[in-house]
Amino acid sequence: MAAEGFRALNENTLVEYIKATPSLCSQLGNLENLQIKEVGDGNLNFVYIVTTSSGSLVIKQALPYIRCIGESWPMSKERAYFEAITLQKHGSWCPNHVPEVYHFDRVMSLIGMRYLAPPHIILRKGLIAGIEYPLLAEHMAEYMSRTLFHTSLLYNTTTVHRQEVAKYCGNLELCRLTEQVVFSDPYKESEYNRCTSPYLDNDALAVREDDELKLEVAELKAKFCEQAQALIHGDLHTGSVMATQDSTQVIDPEFAVYGPMGFDIGAFLGNLILAYFSQDGHADAANDRKAYKQWILKTIEDTWKLFEKKFTSLWVENKDGLGEAYLSSIYKDTVFSRAQEKYVKALFHDSLGFGAAKMIRRIVGVAHVEDFESIQDASVRAGCERQALDFAKKLLKKRRGFQSISEVVLAIKKVPS
Amino acid sequence: MAAEGFRALNENTLVEYIKATPSLCSQLGNLENLQIKEVGDGNLNFVYIVTTSSGSLVIKQALPYIRCIGESWPMSKERAYFEAITLQKHGSWCPNHVPEVYHFDRVMSLIGMRYLAPPHIILRKGLIAGIEYPLLAEHMAEYMSRTLFHTSLLYNTTTVHRQEVAKYCGNLELCRLTEQVVFSDPYKESEYNRCTSPYLDNDALAVREDDELKLEVAELKAKFCEQAQALIHGDLHTGSVMATQDSTQVIDPEFAVYGPMGFDIGAFLGNLILAYFSQDGHADAANDRKAYKQWILKTIEDTWKLFEKKFTSLWVENKDGLGEAYLSSIYKDTVFSRAQEKYVKALFHDSLGFGAAKMIRRIVGVAHVEDFESIQDASVRAGCERQALDFAKKLLKKRRGFQSISEVVLAIKKVPS
Repeated sequence: MAAEGFRALNENTLVEYIKATPSLCSQLGNLENLQIKEVGDGNLNFVYIVTTSSGSLVIKQALPYIRCIGESWPMSKERAYFEAITLQKHGSWCPNHVPEVYHFDRVMSLIGMRYLAPPHIILRKGLIAGIEYPLLAEHMAEYMSRTLFHTSLLYNTTTVHRQEVAKYCGNLELCRLTEQVVFSDPYKESEYNRCTSPYLDNDALAVREDDELKLEVAELKAKFCEQAQALIHGDLHTGSVMATQDSTQVIDPEFAVYGPMGFDIGAFLGNLILAYFSQDGHADAANDRKAYKQWILKTIEDTWKLFEKKFTSLWVENKDGLGEAYLSSIYKDTVFSRAQEKYVKALFHDSLGFGAAKMIRRIVGVAHVEDFESIQDASVRAGCERQALDFAKKLLKKRRGFQSISEVVLAIKKVPS
Repeated sequence: MAAEGFRALNENTLVEYIKATPSLCSQLGNLENLQIKEVGDGNLNFVYIVTTSSGSLVIKQALPYIRCIGESWPMSKERAYFEAITLQKHGSWCPNHVPEVYHFDRVMSLIGMRYLAPPHIILRKGLIAGIEYPLLAEHMAEYMSRTLFHTSLLYNTTTVHRQEVAKYCGNLELCRLTEQVVFSDPYKESEYNRCTSPYLDNDALAVREDDELKLEVAELKAKFCEQAQALIHGDLHTGSVMATQDSTQVIDPEFAVYGPMGFDIGAFLGNLILAYFSQDGHADAANDRKAYKQWILKTIEDTWKLFEKKFTSLWVENKDGLGEAYLSSIYKDTVFSRAQEKYVKALFHDSLGFGAAKMIRRIVGVAHVEDFESIQDASVRAGCERQALDFAKKLLKKRRGFQSISEVVLAIKKVPS
């Protein structure tokens, strides 16, 4: 897999690399007191925090296999290219919520980018700790509406769109991983699947034997594989967001592809719902988490409502622009409003479907979430997971029956503890 | 637009080209008595029939503009590349109904292919002449089922699929033409639109003011631009088929792209429905065309029924193959049958929608069909066209209400003459 010129760096060789790269040096200023710390806790890459007395940055290098599994699961390091160009593209539309890229080296699969300094933490860890983020819904709605709208045919010509689609077809290895772990493995026997056993063994079996569920999942998988609606992040769970009280930054778009918008929106909402159902497992004498659960539900509701508002506003602002899906000479006045309503309603149902699929795979598939994994008592954990799983199955099958996000939130609330 | 090495040939310079090209010479045998006749009656290209005493072939050269309009409407001659690779790909899956490619020269945008000798004629002309083709439904069902199935995710891995999708994204100029003339121009004022005036002026206006219709058309346009379901011909009307009593050959796939299967199926069925509604304009004392109209309806019904049968059979035969949309480890027994039913039903409704859109654009858009154009009496022609237009509008808006092709045929029959 080694391409000409590629070499895996370590903390020592990275120093030489930085010194030879002006775009990195200029971010760091004086290179005395250069400090490098490897912090990659993800599954796929090596990540270094680089600091000096006058600056900082992060270096992310992709290796040609999945880090947490090893060389037995090879994975194109070209994913760094797709991550870099997506950070740049999404960043151009939403610089407030996407870290700046300082440097990209395609041969080395290496990205130099903004270091998101403390108090930034991974949002998922914040949700586990019970931290409220008052601007989270606003920021994520802003990020999703701006990135998805501006990379869709609501904003672009089909010429630009088809050129971009062609480029991202190259990210097929990471798409294949999504296809397998989200849409296939949870619905069949797979060596990679796991669940909180023995508590959920029968629940996992029930998923594999649920014909209604499988028919719906096939429809979603087809959309993921066939529908080039917008440039999606492709992995927008709460572990791909770093947050503070006033900053929200979306990272790690290496799964980016032209796909259905609902896959991103659903990933984020679905992971908030997982966080909600995990809270009872984190409750203790000092904090029953009841108020926090309400905050999560409000965040779910606000995120969709603000997304819808911002997305349709962008559409109105740009209705006389170059976007070719709805020409203003055809869609004006009443029919324009009706077209918007119809589009957003379909997007809402897509988002619920994909969100539910993302929930299910986190409970009976290969990759679980820390929200549940950090609950020590397996029977308590299984109880929380079962609530989430049952709700997700219902949401996936009945998604077209929900007319609003408020109805979804109400349905979540009604799940008996 | 002139690329290095490209030159437009004529009947004289083509002789030299042929003599210098072994793959063409070998088809022609003895080059004495070489005869060349330019016969292109289409809109886009130059077509030459080349014969000798011992062989024959057709040479098709694309020029960098639309032939029938001239240099004022430029059009990538790379369309010849997409035509050639599609003839080869579709031909590999259905050699009985796709002419063989002997030679392709990308620089010259030139294809050398099988000459479909008389009595082959363009199917549309046969339908105008009232000729029955007893094998047409069987052959077209065979062509559509085999080409569409084998280029979809029912047969291929997503790896192969995304690579092929990327390649065909390059055919964006011809896709843009489709987007404009099928999905946009008929629904707005456009200098290119025309209709049988003054008879249909109000009908054309009604199309431009029909909000329900526009909402449905937007949905179809999005599918055409976004959904990479299979490698479609892209222009499968009855002018893209050459037929005899026992041979059916599909030509001219220069609009090929990865798109919704229903776009091909609908194009063919929609053009048969246009042929049906044109028959009253071709009736005379010798032939009232009543029996022929019944034959057309039977062909419509048989085409879909045979397509459905062949398509689902291919799926059953290949269910344990490499196709990744429905893994056999997930979709087995009852749920496999149910998945097939659901897939085919969606495909049926797509086909009706696209077929209706293709009908509408032939009556109020830029490019009309000879079925109607050859009716000399404008008021008679307008009457036939109005029947077709009204039916198409109903079909497009109510397509999801039709449960079978028999119901569609019944609805056609019920249109008052």
